[in-house]
Amino acid sequence: MFDVEKITNEIIAFIREYFEKFNLKGVVLGISGGKDSAVVAGLFCKALGSDKVIGLTLPCHSNEQDKIDAKKVSNHFGFKLLNLELTNVYDVFVDEFDKNFKEFGIEAKDLIDSNINLKPKLRMASLYYVAQALSQFEKQGYLVAGTSNLCELYVGYFTKGGDNVCDISVLGDLTVSEVLAIGDYIDVPKEILYKAPSDGLSNLTDEEKMEIKYADVEKVIYGKPVSVEAYQKIKKLHEKNAYKFFIPTYKKG
Amino acid sequence: MFDVEKITNEIIAFIREYFEKFNLKGVVLGISGGKDSAVVAGLFCKALGSDKVIGLTLPCHSNEQDKIDAKKVSNHFGFKLLNLELTNVYDVFVDEFDKNFKEFGIEAKDLIDSNINLKPKLRMASLYYVAQALSQFEKQGYLVAGTSNLCELYVGYFTKGGDNVCDISVLGDLTVSEVLAIGDYIDVPKEILYKAPSDGLSNLTDEEKMEIKYADVEKVIYGKPVSVEAYQKIKKLHEKNAYKFFIPTYKKG
Repeated sequence: MFDVEKITNEIIAFIREYFEKFNLKGVVLGISGGKDSAVVAGLFCKALGSDKVIGLTLPCHSNEQDKIDAKKVSNHFGFKLLNLELTNVYDVFVDEFDKNFKEFGIEAKDLIDSNINLKPKLRMASLYYVAQALSQFEKQGYLVAGTSNLCELYVGYFTKGGDNVCDISVLGDLTVSEVLAIGDYIDVPKEILYKAPSDGLSNLTDEEKMEIKYADVEKVIYGKPVSVEAYQKIKKLHEKNAYKFFIPTYKKG
Repeated sequence: MFDVEKITNEIIAFIREYFEKFNLKGVVLGISGGKDSAVVAGLFCKALGSDKVIGLTLPCHSNEQDKIDAKKVSNHFGFKLLNLELTNVYDVFVDEFDKNFKEFGIEAKDLIDSNINLKPKLRMASLYYVAQALSQFEKQGYLVAGTSNLCELYVGYFTKGGDNVCDISVLGDLTVSEVLAIGDYIDVPKEILYKAPSDGLSNLTDEEKMEIKYADVEKVIYGKPVSVEAYQKIKKLHEKNAYKFFIPTYKKG
């Protein structure tokens, strides 16, 4: 049985101990308007105080609703929310690409995987830029908090070199239902917590995109029965994306 | 004793086996004009054929000499070299930062760590953008090759979320002197191989910047005697940068 009070308190203690051990000041994280970043922000506010938490909206051809939802989260927990607009950065990047790859007959606008995966990398770069800026300015370290949960990590639903790059992870061992339980317990606004998770990039929910249910991913992780079809799809994604977790390296014999 | 012929052949076999196993087409890597990327490019050309290797110059307020040296490497091994200009991307990024962080009294031009570490992240994003573009265009996978060597990894001399993000590493278990031996054996142009390694970002060589010698790093790695001062500096860097290799994650008890 998942003891939400106990786990929440353990996470708060985990954050406090880590920040004390390394004499750190605060944390920077991207606020997408979805449940995971809201829960992470809430946990860090409880652990460190909301004045130590800096949320960033990082719009990159994004829906205006994402920013409205991010603002709700920031108002609710009382942390500062800043904006770093990435749409122009993205547009200049793809223009530069187009200048140099004409000879291949490749145009940036047609590049499905390249475009979807560029955005989380620009966001990661922004979070580190701001964290290092604040560290320099306040002469004490800021970390970048990750927001991936166990179900996403299990099926490899993240951009390598993007949203998986962080300095501290508090949801990485928690399934979607466990994250929701914590979000409910720490009082994340309901309309944020129960919004269907989507990358905000592909116009599909995560579950539609992968054709799996996170409830089934959780069952596979915990060794509970699921349909053969779901089991096979989930295991296939897990194995296909294993490469994102390690770098094959030549080793001297 | 380091058997350069044996190790070179093993690396070539390692690359071929990995590409055959996963039915991959080719490789994309950044060509900095320095020794590591030249050696990696040469090894991949020998393993896969130079038509399967795409080098990228990724100038970002860089010296013109870097591009000239990269062109020498590409001419020597016969692989295609493309350019993706990142100076404008970088400039738009810092402009967007300045727009939103005025209230802190922080200006991008003063941000030492933020600026130095942004460039390798933009380069990593570019390498993946091109690798995924080519994978889509040619309907067969391209990987991003890393160029870090064992000495750099040991002291943590890389940007987390930047040059350490890659799909395959062939120098990650080789010290600087071993990389030089291989470079000499596969005939990397001497002026590239023996150029003092520099990040091209800070106007200092790597050794000046860290105040250590790679020859001493190698001795520490292999448990050979070095001065107490060098030993302490190297061990301190090793421990200080250990955080770049793992993500502290809360685990359910």
